[in-house]
Amino acid sequence: MTIFQRQLEIMAPGRGFVDVTARVQAVVAASGLTRGLCTTFVMHTSASLVIQENADPAVRRDPERLMSDLAPESRTWEHDDEGPDDMPAHARAMLTQTSLCVPFSAGRLVLGTWQGLYLWQHRRRAEARSLFVHLDGQAD
Amino acid sequence: MTIFQRQLEIMAPGRGFVDVTARVQAVVAASGLTRGLCTTFVMHTSASLVIQENADPAVRRDPERLMSDLAPESRTWEHDDEGPDDMPAHARAMLTQTSLCVPFSAGRLVLGTWQGLYLWQHRRRAEARSLFVHLDGQAD
Amino acid sequence: MTIFQRQLEIMAPGRGFVDVTARVQAVVAASGLTRGLCTTFVMHTSASLVIQENADPAVRRDPERLMSDLAPESRTWEHDDEGPDDMPAHARAMLTQTSLCVPFSAGRLVLGTWQGLYLWQHRRRAEARSLFVHLDGQAD
Repeated sequence: MTIFQRQLEIMAPGRGFVDVTARVQAVVAASGLTRGLCTTFVMHTSASLVIQENADPAVRRDPERLMSDLAPESRTWEHDDEGPDDMPAHARAMLTQTSLCVPFSAGRLVLGTWQGLYLWQHRRRAEARSLFVHLDGQAD
Repeated sequence: MTIFQRQLEIMAPGRGFVDVTARVQAVVAASGLTRGLCTTFVMHTSASLVIQENADPAVRRDPERLMSDLAPESRTWEHDDEGPDDMPAHARAMLTQTSLCVPFSAGRLVLGTWQGLYLWQHRRRAEARSLFVHLDGQAD
Repeated sequence: MTIFQRQLEIMAPGRGFVDVTARVQAVVAASGLTRGLCTTFVMHTSASLVIQENADPAVRRDPERLMSDLAPESRTWEHDDEGPDDMPAHARAMLTQTSLCVPFSAGRLVLGTWQGLYLWQHRRRAEARSLFVHLDGQAD
Protein backbone atom coordinates (compact mmCIF):
# COMPACT_ATOMS: atom_id res chain seq x y z
CA MET A 1 0.00 0.00 0.00
CA THR A 2 1.30 3.38 -1.03
CA ILE A 3 0.17 6.93 -0.34
CA PHE A 4 0.47 9.54 -3.05
CA GLN A 5 -0.52 13.16 -2.40
CA ARG A 6 -0.54 16.12 -4.74
CA GLN A 7 -1.91 19.64 -4.52
CA LEU A 8 -3.51 21.10 -7.65
CA GLU A 9 -4.18 24.74 -8.43
CA ILE A 10 -7.28 25.20 -10.55
CA MET A 11 -8.19 28.49 -12.18
CA ALA A 12 -11.89 29.20 -11.77
CA PRO A 13 -12.87 31.97 -14.20
CA GLY A 14 -15.87 32.98 -12.07
CA ARG A 15 -19.00 31.46 -10.57
CA GLY A 16 -19.77 28.09 -12.10
CA PHE A 17 -18.46 24.58 -12.76
CA VAL A 18 -14.91 23.67 -13.76
CA ASP A 19 -14.42 20.10 -14.99
CA VAL A 20 -11.47 18.63 -13.06
CA THR A 21 -11.92 14.98 -14.07
CA ALA A 22 -8.85 14.89 -16.33
CA ARG A 23 -6.70 16.69 -13.75
CA VAL A 24 -7.62 14.21 -11.01
CA GLN A 25 -7.25 11.22 -13.35
CA ALA A 26 -3.77 12.54 -14.26
CA VAL A 27 -2.79 12.34 -10.58
CA VAL A 28 -3.86 8.70 -10.54
CA ALA A 29 -1.73 8.08 -13.66
CA ALA A 30 1.26 9.95 -12.17
CA SER A 31 1.10 7.82 -9.02
CA GLY A 32 1.62 4.56 -10.88
CA LEU A 33 -1.03 3.00 -8.63
CA THR A 34 -3.62 0.79 -10.27
CA ARG A 35 -6.11 -0.01 -7.53
CA GLY A 36 -7.15 2.16 -4.61
CA LEU A 37 -9.17 5.14 -3.43
CA CYS A 38 -8.83 8.70 -4.68
CA THR A 39 -9.97 11.48 -2.34
CA THR A 40 -10.20 15.00 -3.73
CA PHE A 41 -10.46 17.72 -1.11
CA VAL A 42 -11.17 21.43 -1.76
CA MET A 43 -9.25 23.72 0.58
CA HIS A 44 -11.88 26.50 0.62
CA THR A 45 -15.30 27.22 2.11
CA SER A 46 -16.67 29.25 -0.79
CA ALA A 47 -16.12 26.61 -3.46
CA SER A 48 -17.15 22.97 -3.43
CA LEU A 49 -17.00 19.69 -5.30
CA VAL A 50 -19.74 17.72 -7.02
CA ILE A 51 -20.05 14.79 -9.35
CA GLN A 52 -22.45 15.78 -12.08
CA GLU A 53 -23.50 14.75 -15.58
CA ASN A 54 -20.74 15.48 -18.08
CA ALA A 55 -22.74 15.59 -21.31
CA ASP A 56 -25.21 18.48 -21.71
CA PRO A 57 -23.78 21.80 -20.37
CA ALA A 58 -27.34 22.77 -19.34
CA VAL A 59 -27.01 20.22 -16.54
CA ARG A 60 -24.43 22.57 -14.99
CA ARG A 61 -26.45 25.75 -15.60
CA ASP A 62 -29.62 24.42 -13.95
CA PRO A 63 -27.93 23.72 -10.57
CA GLU A 64 -26.51 27.25 -10.60
CA ARG A 65 -30.03 28.63 -11.01
CA LEU A 66 -31.39 26.29 -8.35
CA MET A 67 -28.77 27.46 -5.87
CA SER A 68 -29.73 31.06 -6.68
CA ASP A 69 -33.15 30.18 -5.29
CA LEU A 70 -32.08 27.95 -2.38
CA ALA A 71 -29.30 30.25 -1.12
CA PRO A 72 -29.90 33.58 -2.89
CA GLU A 73 -27.77 36.69 -2.75
CA SER A 74 -30.96 38.68 -2.12
CA ARG A 75 -31.53 36.95 1.23
CA THR A 76 -30.70 38.94 4.37
CA TRP A 77 -27.46 37.40 5.62
CA GLU A 78 -25.90 38.47 8.90
CA HIS A 79 -22.40 37.83 7.50
CA ASP A 80 -22.39 40.41 4.69
CA ASP A 81 -19.11 42.30 5.03
CA GLU A 82 -17.23 40.32 2.36
CA GLY A 83 -19.73 41.10 -0.40
CA PRO A 84 -23.18 39.85 -1.35
CA ASP A 85 -21.81 36.64 -2.90
CA ASP A 86 -19.75 35.53 0.12
CA MET A 87 -22.27 34.05 2.55
CA PRO A 88 -24.30 32.48 -0.29
CA ALA A 89 -21.00 30.86 -1.35
CA HIS A 90 -20.51 29.34 2.11
CA ALA A 91 -24.11 28.11 2.13
CA ARG A 92 -23.84 26.53 -1.32
CA ALA A 93 -20.57 24.83 -0.37
CA MET A 94 -22.29 23.45 2.74
CA LEU A 95 -25.14 22.00 0.66
CA THR A 96 -22.72 20.19 -1.66
CA GLN A 97 -19.33 18.52 -0.97
CA THR A 98 -15.92 19.43 0.40
CA SER A 99 -14.42 16.08 -0.58
CA LEU A 100 -15.15 13.39 -3.16
CA CYS A 101 -14.04 9.79 -2.69
CA VAL A 102 -13.82 7.81 -5.91
CA PRO A 103 -12.32 4.30 -6.07
CA PHE A 104 -9.98 3.43 -8.94
CA SER A 105 -9.22 0.13 -10.59
CA ALA A 106 -6.89 -0.77 -13.48
CA GLY A 107 -5.51 2.74 -13.13
CA ARG A 108 -8.86 4.44 -13.86
CA LEU A 109 -11.39 6.18 -11.64
CA VAL A 110 -14.46 3.91 -11.59
CA LEU A 111 -16.79 6.67 -12.77
CA GLY A 112 -20.04 5.86 -14.52
CA THR A 113 -20.28 6.83 -18.18
CA TRP A 114 -21.93 10.18 -17.49
CA GLN A 115 -20.06 11.16 -14.36
CA GLY A 116 -17.57 14.01 -14.21
CA LEU A 117 -15.82 15.65 -11.23
CA TYR A 118 -16.45 19.37 -10.94
CA LEU A 119 -15.02 22.16 -8.88
CA TRP A 120 -17.90 24.53 -8.23
CA GLN A 121 -16.75 28.11 -7.73
CA HIS A 122 -19.41 29.98 -5.74
CA ARG A 123 -17.81 33.45 -5.61
CA ARG A 124 -18.44 35.65 -8.63
CA ARG A 125 -14.79 36.53 -9.10
CA ALA A 126 -12.11 34.58 -10.91
CA GLU A 127 -9.84 32.81 -8.42
CA ALA A 128 -7.19 30.14 -8.28
CA ARG A 129 -8.53 27.33 -6.10
CA SER A 130 -6.50 24.63 -4.33
CA LEU A 131 -7.46 20.99 -4.47
CA PHE A 132 -5.59 18.37 -2.49
CA VAL A 133 -5.66 14.90 -4.06
CA HIS A 134 -4.88 11.94 -1.79
CA LEU A 135 -4.41 8.43 -3.21
CA ASP A 136 -4.11 5.29 -1.23
CA GLY A 137 -3.55 2.12 -3.19
CA GLN A 138 -1.30 -0.43 -4.77
CA ALA A 139 0.33 -1.25 -8.10
CA ASP A 140 -0.98 -4.70 -8.97
CA MET B 1 -3.31 -3.61 4.48
CA THR B 2 -5.53 -5.12 1.82
CA ILE B 3 -7.82 -3.64 -0.80
CA PHE B 4 -11.07 -5.38 -1.62
CA GLN B 5 -13.37 -4.06 -4.36
CA ARG B 6 -16.74 -5.29 -5.49
CA GLN B 7 -19.42 -3.91 -7.78
CA LEU B 8 -23.04 -4.42 -6.74
CA GLU B 9 -26.13 -4.19 -8.91
CA ILE B 10 -29.14 -2.94 -6.97
CA MET B 11 -32.66 -3.05 -8.36
CA ALA B 12 -34.48 0.20 -7.62
CA PRO B 13 -38.20 -0.36 -8.18
CA GLY B 14 -38.81 3.36 -8.78
CA ARG B 15 -38.26 6.70 -7.06
CA GLY B 16 -37.46 6.27 -3.39
CA PHE B 17 -35.10 4.66 -0.91
CA VAL B 18 -33.59 1.17 -1.14
CA ASP B 19 -31.91 -0.11 2.03
CA VAL B 20 -28.44 -1.39 1.03
CA THR B 21 -26.99 -1.78 4.53
CA ALA B 22 -27.03 -5.59 4.45
CA ARG B 23 -25.56 -5.70 0.94
CA VAL B 24 -22.65 -3.45 1.91
CA GLN B 25 -22.11 -5.26 5.21
CA ALA B 26 -21.99 -8.53 3.22
CA VAL B 27 -19.07 -7.16 1.17
CA VAL B 28 -17.22 -6.43 4.42
CA ALA B 29 -17.89 -10.01 5.54
CA ALA B 30 -16.80 -11.45 2.18
CA SER B 31 -13.51 -9.54 2.35
CA GLY B 32 -12.41 -11.23 5.57
CA LEU B 33 -11.16 -7.83 6.76
CA THR B 34 -11.98 -6.83 10.31
CA ARG B 35 -10.81 -3.23 10.60
CA GLY B 36 -10.77 -0.55 7.95
CA LEU B 37 -12.76 1.91 5.88
CA CYS B 38 -15.67 1.06 3.58
CA THR B 39 -16.42 3.49 0.75
CA THR B 40 -19.63 3.00 -1.22
CA PHE B 41 -19.79 4.89 -4.50
CA VAL B 42 -22.85 5.25 -6.74
CA MET B 43 -21.96 5.20 -10.45
CA HIS B 44 -24.84 7.47 -11.54
CA THR B 45 -25.86 11.12 -11.45
CA SER B 46 -29.59 10.58 -11.06
CA ALA B 47 -29.39 8.43 -7.93
CA SER B 48 -27.53 9.11 -4.71
CA LEU B 49 -26.59 7.73 -1.32
CA VAL B 50 -27.67 8.80 2.15
CA ILE B 51 -27.44 7.53 5.68
CA GLN B 52 -30.87 7.86 7.22
CA GLU B 53 -32.91 6.58 10.15
CA ASN B 54 -33.75 2.91 9.66
CA ALA B 55 -36.77 2.58 11.95
CA ASP B 56 -39.93 4.46 10.89
CA PRO B 57 -40.56 4.27 7.10
CA ALA B 58 -42.07 7.77 7.30
CA VAL B 59 -38.54 9.05 7.79
CA ARG B 60 -37.88 8.02 4.17
CA ARG B 61 -41.16 9.44 2.82
CA ASP B 62 -40.68 12.89 4.33
CA PRO B 63 -37.33 13.52 2.54
CA GLU B 64 -38.96 12.53 -0.75
CA ARG B 65 -41.64 15.16 -0.19
CA LEU B 66 -39.06 17.72 0.88
CA MET B 67 -37.05 17.15 -2.30
CA SER B 68 -40.27 17.60 -4.31
CA ASP B 69 -40.33 21.13 -2.91
CA LEU B 70 -36.58 21.91 -3.04
CA ALA B 71 -36.01 20.53 -6.55
CA PRO B 72 -39.50 20.10 -8.03
CA GLU B 73 -40.43 18.63 -11.37
CA SER B 74 -42.69 21.65 -11.93
CA ARG B 75 -39.73 24.03 -11.98
CA THR B 76 -38.60 25.33 -15.37
CA TRP B 77 -35.40 23.41 -16.11
CA GLU B 78 -33.29 24.16 -19.16
CA HIS B 79 -32.24 20.50 -19.42
CA ASP B 80 -35.65 18.91 -20.05
CA ASP B 81 -35.18 16.58 -23.01
CA GLU B 82 -34.81 13.40 -20.96
CA GLY B 83 -38.17 13.77 -19.19
CA PRO B 84 -39.51 15.92 -16.35
CA ASP B 85 -37.88 13.75 -13.69
CA ASP B 86 -34.34 13.87 -15.12
CA MET B 87 -32.97 17.27 -14.14
CA PRO B 88 -34.68 17.14 -10.72
CA ALA B 89 -32.90 13.79 -10.28
CA HIS B 90 -29.50 15.39 -10.99
CA ALA B 91 -30.29 18.23 -8.59
CA ARG B 92 -31.38 15.89 -5.79
CA ALA B 93 -28.27 13.77 -6.26
CA MET B 94 -26.16 16.94 -6.00
CA LEU B 95 -27.84 17.92 -2.72
CA THR B 96 -27.12 14.50 -1.18
CA GLN B 97 -24.11 12.12 -1.58
CA THR B 98 -22.31 10.26 -4.32
CA SER B 99 -20.18 8.32 -1.87
CA LEU B 100 -20.45 7.23 1.76
CA CYS B 101 -17.39 6.46 3.88
CA VAL B 102 -18.09 4.28 6.89
CA PRO B 103 -15.32 2.83 9.08
CA PHE B 104 -15.58 -0.80 10.21
CA SER B 105 -14.21 -2.54 13.26
CA ALA B 106 -14.47 -6.16 14.43
CA GLY B 107 -15.86 -6.91 10.95
CA ARG B 108 -18.87 -4.59 11.35
CA LEU B 109 -19.66 -1.15 9.95
CA VAL B 110 -19.56 1.23 12.94
CA LEU B 111 -23.07 2.51 12.31
CA GLY B 112 -25.11 4.03 15.10
CA THR B 113 -28.18 2.08 16.23
CA TRP B 114 -30.57 3.98 13.97
CA GLN B 115 -28.35 4.39 10.92
CA GLY B 116 -28.97 2.62 7.63
CA LEU B 117 -27.32 3.06 4.21
CA TYR B 118 -29.75 3.90 1.45
CA LEU B 119 -29.58 4.13 -2.30
CA TRP B 120 -31.92 6.92 -3.28
CA GLN B 121 -33.35 6.47 -6.77
CA HIS B 122 -34.43 9.86 -8.09
CA ARG B 123 -35.83 8.81 -11.50
CA ARG B 124 -39.43 7.60 -11.46
CA ARG B 125 -38.68 4.45 -13.40
CA ALA B 126 -37.41 1.12 -12.11
CA GLU B 127 -33.72 0.70 -12.87
CA ALA B 128 -30.75 -1.45 -11.95
CA ARG B 129 -28.19 0.80 -10.28
CA SER B 130 -24.47 0.12 -9.88
CA LEU B 131 -22.68 0.63 -6.60
CA PHE B 132 -18.94 0.20 -6.28
CA VAL B 133 -17.79 -0.84 -2.82
CA HIS B 134 -14.14 -0.24 -1.93
CA LEU B 135 -12.62 -1.63 1.28
CA ASP B 136 -9.23 -0.83 2.64
CA GLY B 137 -8.26 -2.59 5.83
CA GLN B 138 -6.67 -5.46 7.66
CA ALA B 139 -7.55 -8.76 9.24
CA ASP B 140 -6.51 -8.42 12.90
CA MET C 1 0.36 1.52 6.44
CA THR C 2 -1.34 1.67 9.79
CA ILE C 3 -4.96 2.02 10.85
CA PHE C 4 -5.82 4.05 13.92
CA GLN C 5 -9.42 4.32 15.14
CA ARG C 6 -10.84 6.29 18.02
CA GLN C 7 -14.37 7.13 19.13
CA LEU C 8 -14.97 10.64 20.49
CA GLU C 9 -17.88 11.82 22.62
CA ILE C 10 -18.74 15.44 21.93
CA MET C 11 -21.11 17.43 24.11
CA ALA C 12 -23.49 19.48 21.98
CA PRO C 13 -25.15 22.11 24.18
CA GLY C 14 -28.14 22.40 21.85
CA ARG C 15 -28.90 23.15 18.21
CA GLY C 16 -25.91 24.66 16.45
CA PHE C 17 -22.28 24.17 15.51
CA VAL C 18 -19.56 22.68 17.71
CA ASP C 19 -15.99 23.16 16.49
CA VAL C 20 -14.30 19.73 16.55
CA THR C 21 -11.17 20.63 14.58
CA ALA C 22 -8.83 20.45 17.59
CA ARG C 23 -10.38 17.17 18.78
CA VAL C 24 -9.89 15.53 15.40
CA GLN C 25 -6.39 16.97 14.97
CA ALA C 26 -5.56 15.54 18.42
CA VAL C 27 -6.45 12.05 17.15
CA VAL C 28 -4.02 12.53 14.27
CA ALA C 29 -1.33 13.59 16.78
CA ALA C 30 -2.10 10.63 19.08
CA SER C 31 -1.75 8.19 16.19
CA GLY C 32 1.85 9.14 15.48
CA LEU C 33 1.02 9.01 11.77
CA THR C 34 2.33 11.82 9.60
CA ARG C 35 0.75 11.22 6.19
CA GLY C 36 -2.63 9.73 5.39
CA LEU C 37 -6.39 10.21 5.31
CA CYS C 38 -8.59 11.12 8.26
CA THR C 39 -12.26 10.16 8.05
CA THR C 40 -14.62 11.52 10.69
CA PHE C 41 -17.99 9.78 10.89
CA VAL C 42 -21.00 10.92 12.95
CA MET C 43 -22.95 7.98 14.42
CA HIS C 44 -26.35 9.75 14.37
CA THR C 45 -29.03 10.77 11.89
CA SER C 46 -30.08 13.99 13.64
CA ALA C 47 -26.64 15.59 13.71
CA SER C 48 -24.19 16.04 10.86
CA LEU C 49 -20.73 17.25 9.90
CA VAL C 50 -19.68 20.22 7.81
CA ILE C 51 -16.53 22.10 6.99
CA GLN C 52 -17.25 25.78 7.37
CA GLU C 53 -15.47 29.10 7.79
CA ASN C 54 -13.83 29.32 11.20
CA ALA C 55 -13.49 33.10 11.58
CA ASP C 56 -16.74 35.08 11.91
CA PRO C 57 -19.33 33.30 14.15
CA ALA C 58 -22.08 34.78 11.97
CA VAL C 59 -21.02 32.29 9.29
CA ARG C 60 -22.41 29.58 11.58
CA ARG C 61 -25.60 31.46 12.47
CA ASP C 62 -26.60 32.13 8.86
CA PRO C 63 -26.66 28.41 7.89
CA GLU C 64 -28.84 27.71 10.90
CA ARG C 65 -31.34 30.30 9.68
CA LEU C 66 -31.13 28.99 6.13
CA MET C 67 -31.92 25.45 7.31
CA SER C 68 -34.90 26.86 9.23
CA ASP C 69 -36.26 27.90 5.85
CA LEU C 70 -35.19 24.86 3.78
CA ALA C 71 -36.33 22.23 6.32
CA PRO C 72 -38.52 24.15 8.78
CA GLU C 73 -40.13 22.83 11.94
CA SER C 74 -43.37 24.45 10.79
CA ARG C 75 -43.63 22.12 7.77
CA THR C 76 -46.12 19.27 7.95
CA TRP C 77 -43.96 16.20 8.51
CA GLU C 78 -45.46 12.70 8.54
CA HIS C 79 -42.86 11.56 11.08
CA ASP C 80 -43.76 13.84 13.99
CA ASP C 81 -43.98 11.60 17.04
CA GLU C 82 -40.48 12.39 18.36
CA GLY C 83 -41.08 16.13 18.57
CA PRO C 84 -41.21 19.01 16.07
CA ASP C 85 -37.41 19.19 15.80
CA ASP C 86 -36.85 15.50 14.98
CA MET C 87 -37.74 15.13 11.30
CA PRO C 88 -36.24 18.56 10.44
CA ALA C 89 -33.06 17.23 12.10
CA HIS C 90 -33.03 14.16 9.83
CA ALA C 91 -33.64 16.36 6.79
CA ARG C 92 -30.86 18.79 7.68
CA ALA C 93 -28.45 15.92 8.29
CA MET C 94 -29.36 14.53 4.88
CA LEU C 95 -28.60 17.87 3.18
CA THR C 96 -25.15 18.06 4.78
CA GLN C 97 -22.60 15.31 5.61
CA THR C 98 -22.37 12.14 7.66
CA SER C 99 -18.64 11.82 7.10
CA LEU C 100 -15.76 14.14 6.29
CA CYS C 101 -12.57 12.92 4.62
CA VAL C 102 -9.57 15.19 5.14
CA PRO C 103 -6.05 14.21 4.08
CA PHE C 104 -3.15 14.92 6.45
CA SER C 105 0.50 15.58 5.75
CA ALA C 106 3.44 16.32 8.11
CA GLY C 107 1.06 15.32 10.92
CA ARG C 108 -1.47 18.08 10.15
CA LEU C 109 -4.88 18.03 8.50
CA VAL C 110 -4.44 19.83 5.16
CA LEU C 111 -7.20 22.33 5.89
CA GLY C 112 -7.26 25.70 4.18
CA THR C 113 -6.66 28.74 6.39
CA TRP C 114 -10.36 29.39 7.00
CA GLN C 115 -11.59 25.80 7.24
CA GLY C 116 -12.84 24.26 10.47
CA LEU C 117 -14.58 20.92 11.11
CA TYR C 118 -17.95 21.26 12.78
CA LEU C 119 -20.41 18.90 14.37
CA TRP C 120 -23.83 20.31 13.63
CA GLN C 121 -26.39 19.37 16.25
CA HIS C 122 -29.87 19.59 14.71
CA ARG C 123 -31.99 18.64 17.75
CA ARG C 124 -32.79 21.49 20.12
CA ARG C 125 -31.72 19.60 23.20
CA ALA C 126 -28.23 19.20 24.64
CA GLU C 127 -26.83 15.76 23.83
CA ALA C 128 -23.57 13.84 23.85
CA ARG C 129 -22.80 12.87 20.26
CA SER C 130 -20.47 10.11 19.09
CA LEU C 131 -17.92 10.65 16.37
CA PHE C 132 -15.79 7.83 15.03
CA VAL C 133 -12.41 8.91 13.69
CA HIS C 134 -10.62 6.55 11.32
CA LEU C 135 -7.03 7.19 10.21
CA ASP C 136 -5.17 5.33 7.56
CA GLY C 137 -1.59 6.36 6.99
CA GLN C 138 2.09 6.04 7.67
CA ALA C 139 4.80 7.56 9.82
CA ASP C 140 7.35 8.91 7.36
